[in-house]
Amino acid sequence: MKKYYLMAPGPTPVPNQVLLAMAHPIIHHRTPEYEALFARVREGLKWLIQTTQETILLAASGTGGMEAAVANTLSPGDKSLVIRAGKFGERWAEICQAYGVEVVALDAPFGHTVPADRVADALTKSSGIRAVFCQHSETSTGVLHDVKGYAEATRGSDAILVVDAVSSLGVADLPMDAWGVDVVVAGSQKGLMLPPGLAFCTLSDKAWALVKRARLPRYYFDLLEEKKLVVKNQPHFTPAVSIVVGLAAALAMLQAEGLANVFKRHDRLARATRAGVEALGLELFAKATPSPAITAVVSPKGIDGERVLATFASSHNITIAGGQGEMKGKVFRLGHMGYVGDFDVVVALGALEQVLAELGYPVDWGAAVGAAQKVLAERAP
Amino acid sequence: MKKYYLMAPGPTPVPNQVLLAMAHPIIHHRTPEYEALFARVREGLKWLIQTTQETILLAASGTGGMEAAVANTLSPGDKSLVIRAGKFGERWAEICQAYGVEVVALDAPFGHTVPADRVADALTKSSGIRAVFCQHSETSTGVLHDVKGYAEATRGSDAILVVDAVSSLGVADLPMDAWGVDVVVAGSQKGLMLPPGLAFCTLSDKAWALVKRARLPRYYFDLLEEKKLVVKNQPHFTPAVSIVVGLAAALAMLQAEGLANVFKRHDRLARATRAGVEALGLELFAKATPSPAITAVVSPKGIDGERVLATFASSHNITIAGGQGEMKGKVFRLGHMGYVGDFDVVVALGALEQVLAELGYPVDWGAAVGAAQKVLAERAP
Repeated sequence: MKKYYLMAPGPTPVPNQVLLAMAHPIIHHRTPEYEALFARVREGLKWLIQTTQETILLAASGTGGMEAAVANTLSPGDKSLVIRAGKFGERWAEICQAYGVEVVALDAPFGHTVPADRVADALTKSSGIRAVFCQHSETSTGVLHDVKGYAEATRGSDAILVVDAVSSLGVADLPMDAWGVDVVVAGSQKGLMLPPGLAFCTLSDKAWALVKRARLPRYYFDLLEEKKLVVKNQPHFTPAVSIVVGLAAALAMLQAEGLANVFKRHDRLARATRAGVEALGLELFAKATPSPAITAVVSPKGIDGERVLATFASSHNITIAGGQGEMKGKVFRLGHMGYVGDFDVVVALGALEQVLAELGYPVDWGAAVGAAQKVLAERAP
Repeated sequence: MKKYYLMAPGPTPVPNQVLLAMAHPIIHHRTPEYEALFARVREGLKWLIQTTQETILLAASGTGGMEAAVANTLSPGDKSLVIRAGKFGERWAEICQAYGVEVVALDAPFGHTVPADRVADALTKSSGIRAVFCQHSETSTGVLHDVKGYAEATRGSDAILVVDAVSSLGVADLPMDAWGVDVVVAGSQKGLMLPPGLAFCTLSDKAWALVKRARLPRYYFDLLEEKKLVVKNQPHFTPAVSIVVGLAAALAMLQAEGLANVFKRHDRLARATRAGVEALGLELFAKATPSPAITAVVSPKGIDGERVLATFASSHNITIAGGQGEMKGKVFRLGHMGYVGDFDVVVALGALEQVLAELGYPVDWGAAVGAAQKVLAERAP
């Protein structure tokens, strides 16, 4: 028996209490029971997203939410600014292009970030930009982008700021209203500790105003139709009922912990992970602010990242993630978001020591775990 | 304690063994475990849909699958023929219109059907039709449309036949390849006995040929991108993992029963339900072939259908469905698809007798149940 551990950046482990909530007999979505559930979920999401706006739930995974954000706010031929420094930045550009939206790309090498002043410059130089698209946590590189700065750069313009928070919601602080973010897109299978299949779109008044004149086609992802019903606690189309049931349970867990504590926990686990990785002489892939959701590690010279991933699985029954696209083979990624605690990091780093040694890398036994332990021993002053 | 019964036309009850399968620790979708699961699911779906074609799974509910069928096969300005005799027929037209596809509607009053010769005529008279859209089982009216006839009418033309089989897959016989259906769209929460959140699109070679030249925008619902990966048992985007796990369990149950038996069971339960309803002097809403998935009943004079629905819930903790759109208040609907057996019909009709009596309708106690029992007592010759 090799105990299984899921340590990838999504899906993340689903707590047993959430799994069991979802294993209850299914309820119908046109009932007072569902409406009561949805009312609790609405309040929980306002708390989590730090907004007074309603969140639209879509039965889709995160990419569906990203597409909904594009299709509901823009018209054919509109111009968008896309911050592109990873696989998911590329995805924003691909969605825009699929819909005939012009893309002005602000590129940075993968692992780096785009400073907010480049966004401000681009908005000044290139007129007519309707929307700025970015990631908060770029899951493919492990970088946390400067959403607060992007929001400041966007605020004075006609453009909205659309943030992919798929791997940052419930992980890194993202006060939507306080920062002035216009659209927050998220998914269920990361910080929210749920199975994939539920996407979230939350829009500011500025974004809702755009929706009314946006002419890109949408039907299943029609956010305005959903919004008309959400205030009555009703869905437009058949929702992902079981995941919404799980969402209520997961939100209750997060609310019991407290939002500030949720963010502190992730920050601490991420710092411990990075300390452990660096103690082994490995290099972080993130050259900018690292994400508290995930640590992308440059695979050591002579060791293919895909072999690291495969050895985690074959020798230790642990799922981590490899590199995506051009990063395949060059990095491996350790997830530490959602239902994770101190000793998940200890396990991950213990396994990393074993795996690297097995692959011929010189390991000072306990170096990674010890460095992490030191961080984990920190107490609040 | 009032025992709860879900007797609506979707979501339908999820068997305990499926709920428990889905309550297992979640797995990652980029692993050999998921690929092995997906391989089993692919085979099961070919068996269920009676086709050699691959089925594309989408993390979405049925309407997302319908939109995918439109967006992947047509181009702006294309002409479509829509068979419109219920709420879901209207939905095909709405999706086409949302995407700028011209709609030629073949209407029938709700509760009726459109004969296949009208489809043949329309295809002859109106040149340039690229796709014919219809329902198999029209969930809103309880009518089963003549998909076999529509397929014959379409076969010689350039048009594809796209069938919404959301409430008929695993309920009514729909041999895709034998009949020559070009696109089958389905959802998880009806005959497949799963929570909502998974949609299915299966395309014929004729339909795949259209996909290659179709220019409507799509990204999340890009079927060709999914198809490239499905043969490797891999998903394009993060799939609805937990529902796919449930799907494997549900398919195993259906395979153990045998496809012919699945259809016979639904036919028998539907006939028993109709016999019971008529024994109470009530009128079926379906004036054409009734669907084996659902029975829509005209609410008796002086009794609002919404009160029937509400009394099922308040007096007996049973969820049934009301009328949709213009049928609201005029009909109520009893679902009998998915994880249903003889005594579910007995319960439904027993409750119907109680509810109608409570609402002042003269009930001959046991008449509905007795009429159903007689049908259920039938044995194969």
